[in-house]
Amino acid sequence: MAEKQNIIVVGGNAAGPAAAAKAKRTSPGSSVVLFEAAEYISTGTCELPYVLSGEINNLNSIIFFTPETFAGSKGVKVYTSHFVKKIDRRGKKIIVLDRINGNESAFEYDKLILTTGSKAKSIPLFQNHKNLFQLKNVSDFIKIKSYLDENNINKVLIVGAGYIGLETAEAFKTLGMEVIVVEKTELPMPGYDDDVRSLILGELERNGIEFFGGIEELNFNENSDKIESINVEGRNIEFDLVLTAVGIEPNNYLALDANLEIGIHGGIKTDKKQRTSDRNIFAAGDNVEIVNRITNRRDYMPIATLAKKQGHVAGANAAGGNEFFEPVVKNIAVKIFDKVFVHVGLTSGEAAEYQFNFKSVYEVTDNLVQVMPSSKKVFGKILFDKSSKFILGASFFGQSEVIGFGDIISFCVYNKIEAHKLSEINYNYTPPFSPFVNLLSVLGRKIKKELR
Amino acid sequence: MAEKQNIIVVGGNAAGPAAAAKAKRTSPGSSVVLFEAAEYISTGTCELPYVLSGEINNLNSIIFFTPETFAGSKGVKVYTSHFVKKIDRRGKKIIVLDRINGNESAFEYDKLILTTGSKAKSIPLFQNHKNLFQLKNVSDFIKIKSYLDENNINKVLIVGAGYIGLETAEAFKTLGMEVIVVEKTELPMPGYDDDVRSLILGELERNGIEFFGGIEELNFNENSDKIESINVEGRNIEFDLVLTAVGIEPNNYLALDANLEIGIHGGIKTDKKQRTSDRNIFAAGDNVEIVNRITNRRDYMPIATLAKKQGHVAGANAAGGNEFFEPVVKNIAVKIFDKVFVHVGLTSGEAAEYQFNFKSVYEVTDNLVQVMPSSKKVFGKILFDKSSKFILGASFFGQSEVIGFGDIISFCVYNKIEAHKLSEINYNYTPPFSPFVNLLSVLGRKIKKELR
Repeated sequence: MAEKQNIIVVGGNAAGPAAAAKAKRTSPGSSVVLFEAAEYISTGTCELPYVLSGEINNLNSIIFFTPETFAGSKGVKVYTSHFVKKIDRRGKKIIVLDRINGNESAFEYDKLILTTGSKAKSIPLFQNHKNLFQLKNVSDFIKIKSYLDENNINKVLIVGAGYIGLETAEAFKTLGMEVIVVEKTELPMPGYDDDVRSLILGELERNGIEFFGGIEELNFNENSDKIESINVEGRNIEFDLVLTAVGIEPNNYLALDANLEIGIHGGIKTDKKQRTSDRNIFAAGDNVEIVNRITNRRDYMPIATLAKKQGHVAGANAAGGNEFFEPVVKNIAVKIFDKVFVHVGLTSGEAAEYQFNFKSVYEVTDNLVQVMPSSKKVFGKILFDKSSKFILGASFFGQSEVIGFGDIISFCVYNKIEAHKLSEINYNYTPPFSPFVNLLSVLGRKIKKELR
Repeated sequence: MAEKQNIIVVGGNAAGPAAAAKAKRTSPGSSVVLFEAAEYISTGTCELPYVLSGEINNLNSIIFFTPETFAGSKGVKVYTSHFVKKIDRRGKKIIVLDRINGNESAFEYDKLILTTGSKAKSIPLFQNHKNLFQLKNVSDFIKIKSYLDENNINKVLIVGAGYIGLETAEAFKTLGMEVIVVEKTELPMPGYDDDVRSLILGELERNGIEFFGGIEELNFNENSDKIESINVEGRNIEFDLVLTAVGIEPNNYLALDANLEIGIHGGIKTDKKQRTSDRNIFAAGDNVEIVNRITNRRDYMPIATLAKKQGHVAGANAAGGNEFFEPVVKNIAVKIFDKVFVHVGLTSGEAAEYQFNFKSVYEVTDNLVQVMPSSKKVFGKILFDKSSKFILGASFFGQSEVIGFGDIISFCVYNKIEAHKLSEINYNYTPPFSPFVNLLSVLGRKIKKELR
């Protein structure tokens, strides 16, 4: 039996509610309290671009629990609009500011779980301009939405062409606006391989997104409380709204202040049980570093599904359980209008950085037999280790089938299956859904040749 | 160097052209001749239902080569409308009937490759009724098409609810006709598990197909040269056209007559090099038995992708090469209106028949997070061996994502990955394309519990 404890969870987005609910389930006699600085808990984040575009037409549908329904169904006490200012590790208590009435109080813990998530990186130049936004959480969305409702917005500038940048670019385009994207590096999706980044650029342009790459310095023109235009490539481009999406980073003000061990990516270091360098403090989610299954090194992957799993593990262990969070194979995708980009494992840059003896193969095939009217081209690239023969990473750009390709590659990496075996599998062939010759099979044959 | 030989291929659909082209590539000095009894070679078969429905609007697009273009590009001599009557194994020659002029001639071979494919099973009751059809090849399609063009067809009866039966039912429905399906067993897709068969029935009915199961005896009413109605469940149901789709079987008149070794499924027995019991005769495609990778026993799987691979192997080896056709994991799918049914490996019936110590788990989940407007339910069922922990089979019924599931299961079976590991993979989550919790992950967790 788990002993009765005071368990406190700080942060109420993905990992926090999972941790709190699991802690209570593991030790029903314990008191579990969750603090969240903002107004909402348990909200969707990955879904925000689809709320912005209107595809999801009700913001409430991505607020999975109110504080009341969460408390009622999970037996967890929830405080929203409560900002945790400080951890007193020796006294085993936290100092909490009630943002509504300004009062500060101390809460004692036996076990503390930090799920403070990530924050959007900001651009130093930018201040409190009225037409400047980011889209990191529900509160951000509400601000954008009311600005859109109250102003006549025709032209939007997106700064940064990563996931959020491209997803919001598409959302604004779907809403009928002109969209300009500026990016520091030459191509969209910084960090990924140039071949697939070029394909993504092509798709953005085909869909009327104006993209400017290699914009290292932002030359803005302001007018009192708004940013009005930007000078790029000798042109002055005006817009009505700016959204910055230049990346996210761990939100670890508490852990830093409390001197918990932090890794080189800025995330809290934990063991497999999600325990930090303080044995009474656990951590989970976007504020934590994970172990990359391929490199076996610490890495930073702010991904909602991982955050939730980690929260689960941290909650169980804080309550006396014994669960583990295993090393991770990165497996992510982003919708680019009618296409999907999927990436699994390492990029070429990462494979080189970690000094793998690697090679890559790529191919473009038909996703369906050409006689099917909806047949489209699909691009695939696989990186493999010439010594171990294992897959190191893969990128795909095509229709929805690439999600399945990504999951198969994730499977191969996890199970250390030699890359050339991709050519030996019996893949499905069904004219409306799958091709006579599967892209993975072709890539597997190319790898086989390379390994000869 | 491969020696110069006379290589003859009998049958010009999937396996034959692959065998002939590969034989010529392997031994360019050899003479390679292909005989086909019908008018066309190298045609699509799996695509026929989509030509019937009009989705593929040009029959020529599934005739991949004419005899002339094939001969020109592959260096193979092609005779269409030439029926091979007999093999003289001792004399190493075949007797061929020219169906145009009625002449018979003998052709000598050093190596013979039999790719005579499969034929539709017929129903003994049925004779040469004008409105009676099957859909096994391009010639069948042409007959149906001209009958549809010349007659006013409103109501179609399909006999048999396997792949072809259901695909043609959907095609006729797409053409705006009323469609009735009668099936000997209780549910559509005979041979598969009842749970998924019930789901398929539901989808047929939702789409206006009238289904009658358990019809062991066909009580037809004929009128001179047509079949006009059927008595089922006390009703007399009239129709304008009948299509029979009661299964296919190996087309082995030549092999039987020549006393080549035939397996229990009626297919020619070959070794891994596709060599028959006569060392100068190879065989490939739907007239051949394969080895089932799960049971390690001979099985019959008339699947175009396998036929083509076997043709390739037979052609290479007949010409002096050294290639192998490996045991197969069955991985097939059929479109059922807006859904897809995928099956991999063994059914429950087969697992019982082969006396595996097996158990199954099933689950219904969302294919996308529920907040996405296009989110739908998806069914999955996995059979696993309680002793080895390996996957024995799986069925899925859902949207296009089930194709990827099938390929992953095929992968697991091929690589002998323990079934519960499905719960440990990092699956993709992208709101418009993949769910927060993957069906395979849920099934993997259920298997883990069962194996505890």
